[in-house]
Amino acid sequence: MKSPQMEKTRLDKVTVEAITALAQGIESRIEKLGKPEVSFPVRSLSNVRYDPKKGFFEIGKGRSVRALTVNTAKTFAQTLKMMALSRELVLTSDFATKRDAYYQSKNWGEAMFDEQAESDMVMDDIEAMFSVEGVSREQLRYIPDEHGGAVAGELIVNDTDLETGKVERIDCTKFGSGAYSIPSLVEHLTFETKAKFILCIETGGMFQRLQSHKFWQKTHCILVSMAGVPTRATRRFVRRLSDQHKLPVYAFVDCDPYGISNIYRTLKVGSGNAAHINRFFCVPQASFLGVTPADIVDYKLPTHPLKDVDVKRAKDALKNDPFFKIHKSWARAMEQLIKMGVRAEQQALARWGLNYVIDEYLPRKLKATAAFLP
Amino acid sequence: MKSPQMEKTRLDKVTVEAITALAQGIESRIEKLGKPEVSFPVRSLSNVRYDPKKGFFEIGKGRSVRALTVNTAKTFAQTLKMMALSRELVLTSDFATKRDAYYQSKNWGEAMFDEQAESDMVMDDIEAMFSVEGVSREQLRYIPDEHGGAVAGELIVNDTDLETGKVERIDCTKFGSGAYSIPSLVEHLTFETKAKFILCIETGGMFQRLQSHKFWQKTHCILVSMAGVPTRATRRFVRRLSDQHKLPVYAFVDCDPYGISNIYRTLKVGSGNAAHINRFFCVPQASFLGVTPADIVDYKLPTHPLKDVDVKRAKDALKNDPFFKIHKSWARAMEQLIKMGVRAEQQALARWGLNYVIDEYLPRKLKATAAFLP
Repeated sequence: MKSPQMEKTRLDKVTVEAITALAQGIESRIEKLGKPEVSFPVRSLSNVRYDPKKGFFEIGKGRSVRALTVNTAKTFAQTLKMMALSRELVLTSDFATKRDAYYQSKNWGEAMFDEQAESDMVMDDIEAMFSVEGVSREQLRYIPDEHGGAVAGELIVNDTDLETGKVERIDCTKFGSGAYSIPSLVEHLTFETKAKFILCIETGGMFQRLQSHKFWQKTHCILVSMAGVPTRATRRFVRRLSDQHKLPVYAFVDCDPYGISNIYRTLKVGSGNAAHINRFFCVPQASFLGVTPADIVDYKLPTHPLKDVDVKRAKDALKNDPFFKIHKSWARAMEQLIKMGVRAEQQALARWGLNYVIDEYLPRKLKATAAFLP
Repeated sequence: MKSPQMEKTRLDKVTVEAITALAQGIESRIEKLGKPEVSFPVRSLSNVRYDPKKGFFEIGKGRSVRALTVNTAKTFAQTLKMMALSRELVLTSDFATKRDAYYQSKNWGEAMFDEQAESDMVMDDIEAMFSVEGVSREQLRYIPDEHGGAVAGELIVNDTDLETGKVERIDCTKFGSGAYSIPSLVEHLTFETKAKFILCIETGGMFQRLQSHKFWQKTHCILVSMAGVPTRATRRFVRRLSDQHKLPVYAFVDCDPYGISNIYRTLKVGSGNAAHINRFFCVPQASFLGVTPADIVDYKLPTHPLKDVDVKRAKDALKNDPFFKIHKSWARAMEQLIKMGVRAEQQALARWGLNYVIDEYLPRKLKATAAFLP
């Protein structure tokens, strides 16, 4: 395995080269007195492919081209300034949020952004442009304003200090009832682990239960608190960790259309309108531990009626979502849920005792991982 | 200083005694053939006092009494069952979320809750009842479903393991670009620190900048990411840490009515409709580092126009909020903001360079803490 420092250096080199190559292309075009242009992948559901073997929603071959004209001059300049800022961030080992970039532009003279919506759009363009080169926004050193989730269990995270280059070894078994909070930028992290799987948990309450009772010690795993739909940093963290150590990822969420089609589907294959970045953020190796519609029956769980919005979400998924079209077992499960007309929370297992989930439910499930929904 | 283990034992003893005393009061009343009753503080703004010397919105003397009648029999029984569950949780070193408690009730026969709204209400009653005895909901071992914020800097957290009693020493200088994620329950934590202050930060992006550049090392402080209005766990964590080590707390939030009157005001004095718990959650030692309305002028910050909802929020605060009525300097600052008609984000400082906040703004501010808004 490469050292964390080497890995960081390699990624940064790839990134700077991609930026330089793009800028040189524009320069040489200008020198030949041609109109410079940049091309972006078209970002819409119509330009999305889903191949279960690849495991995520992929961007298609559709491209749109922005040539330099009188009308596009400002945006074109802003795109180049934003690329230059990215290069500077990599070279100075720094990073910026979307907002930082917007405020930075106040020093760009006529290329200044008037609204953050404009700078966000240019950043999305750049992200899409470089995604084709295999370079993510995080590698360009633009970070989300939101943190990642919390992590506990049999994992050591190696994190290289921005300024000193010193590597900090963070042992996630040593956080007591607390946890390791995933940073906004995870590209430079490397991992040491002997864990057997990663368990991604929807609610903070359930995570706290499993963490406080050191569930990871009994089962040799890594717990991740998603707190709803996982942030970019959380998804990327799980993906990199799972890739590096060939770890299966099991999702443990509420049994309702939101838990299944928003939280789990986003974790596993990404989202439709951000297909150009799914390759970095999806976790194709994820499978669904529960709570399943069958669990509601098998474990006699207390339920709530499905709301209209739940039913609509489920029917939409069955009709339009390639994930449910391709995975027949998921389509059947979703249909079963609609027919039952109820939903169940993961904490409903507390009906049988607060720690039933630890003593009975999870061990039983983990004996038959092959039966998990895909 | 008491050892973490002793402190935990002491708190648990106080809690169990408070529960037992209340239950015995009811029992002896029944034995005298009287109607048992429980009394709760009235929870409304009309029953709130604000004394700046005490430093938080306090619950007044108004009480309502629930006597056992045919109509209240079920709720009365549920209240007692919930108290009994709390006692069991303390004795078994466990905890439960509101949802856990609701699902547990499914085994309570006729005292079962039909809706979670009912069990939430009974839990709020119990919380209010015991708050008068100085016992918080967290001491009763009912925990919020949400996590706390993230922490980094010159702090060691001592956390006692639920099951083994072993104390884990968590060094918050050793997390690289990541951080310590505050657990849902913080009552059992103790702290070692030589830091000079606690800096509570509104956005994840700004926290990440200060953490990645180890701002805490240069200034000897502890960074806390609030990510908007701080959760109960975050507020309680900051309060206990500040109390134990007599540390000043500085808030660094956006300059807008939401940042000032929701995030900061809630951190410092608590909220109006939860006055019975503010004594546990407020951080009266907090003061306001920035961004202030004056900073917008002094640092020529890029701004956004105030929205109608911002103006309404600010005017409401000036008219109805005891905090702004008592602190004239805050009323003046808020009036200035309304007059300027703009708001500024903390990240607007990036206008002067991404790390201007670290190199110039914060050091300058920290030289004149006496000038902070109260």
